Amino acid sequence: MKKLLYQEILGLRKTLDEAKQAKRHPITLILHNIRSAYNVGSIFRTGDSALIEKIVLCGFTPHPPNNEIEKTSLGAIDSVPWSYEKDIIKAIENEKKSGKYVFAVELTDKSRPYNTLEKNEFPLCLILGNEISGVDDYILEHCDDAIEIPMYGIKHSLNVSVAAGIVVYEAVNTLLK
Amino acid sequence: MKKLLYQEILGLRKTLDEAKQAKRHPITLILHNIRSAYNVGSIFRTGDSALIEKIVLCGFTPHPPNNEIEKTSLGAIDSVPWSYEKDIIKAIENEKKSGKYVFAVELTDKSRPYNTLEKNEFPLCLILGNEISGVDDYILEHCDDAIEIPMYGIKHSLNVSVAAGIVVYEAVNTLLK
Repeated sequence: MKKLLYQEILGLRKTLDEAKQAKRHPITLILHNIRSAYNVGSIFRTGDSALIEKIVLCGFTPHPPNNEIEKTSLGAIDSVPWSYEKDIIKAIENEKKSGKYVFAVELTDKSRPYNTLEKNEFPLCLILGNEISGVDDYILEHCDDAIEIPMYGIKHSLNVSVAAGIVVYEAVNTLLK
Repeated sequence: MKKLLYQEILGLRKTLDEAKQAKRHPITLILHNIRSAYNVGSIFRTGDSALIEKIVLCGFTPHPPNNEIEKTSLGAIDSVPWSYEKDIIKAIENEKKSGKYVFAVELTDKSRPYNTLEKNEFPLCLILGNEISGVDDYILEHCDDAIEIPMYGIKHSLNVSVAAGIVVYEAVNTLLK
């Protein structure tokens, strides 16, 4: 078993032009009040590799142009469509108008496991919140549902970019089933 | 729909003593030559929340005691069993001796999608490599198989802590199916 060489992998990947013209997976990520540009950059890498439709940065989430995001996204901010909308409720309403189901990634009194997503719940918009406080109640009121990642240990949460990776890839796998 | 309060979540989580006595999921993570303590800390959080058996830190991967790991793991280094073994081949052989299948998380000429794991492939040890160079060929020679996360965009890889989260949660879901 041999690792693929850089040039071999390059041949498997889309070029930037191809990525811009590709039919993307109908998944939007809304990032609300994320503190760390490092996390935002990492989520852009996930958005690129999962070929999601777009990322909407809300509230005080850092947004391009931003050196730290550029550095940690390793170029993914050029391939993933994104926008900035300060008002998250407006961002949610925009997604609903365009026909998306809007789900929070949050532990609530009604949340269900993230791996119970169904094909008929797409196009899907997933909301990830602040590293400490998560998705606030006033935002949950505007969501169609909430999904949670089961936590089997002592801690209350995962790193937000890790959580984003887990739910986004599960969503892609559900779509492609 | 309401977010669970801190005290409500606390009641759902294990205490440190409970975590230490819990039957953990038969999954070991080997981290080889990870550069960033931030990534190691984040992977410890994932190891806690997924209740994996242990994390083995190899090569130049930073290991506790380390302020940055302590800070980014948010206490998870106390709940996840871990060890340091400079020689990764020795670490792999130890895992094999204890009956584990050893899979690299790497794009190789024979790797298969990460979501094709089967229940009979546990107990399982997953190897994650360096942020830039991944899992080296001399290590792959000692692995039973390799799994890859499909990359649909322009980039070659995910952040290593995100990749760890995706494969570890998939492994847990496979176990619990």
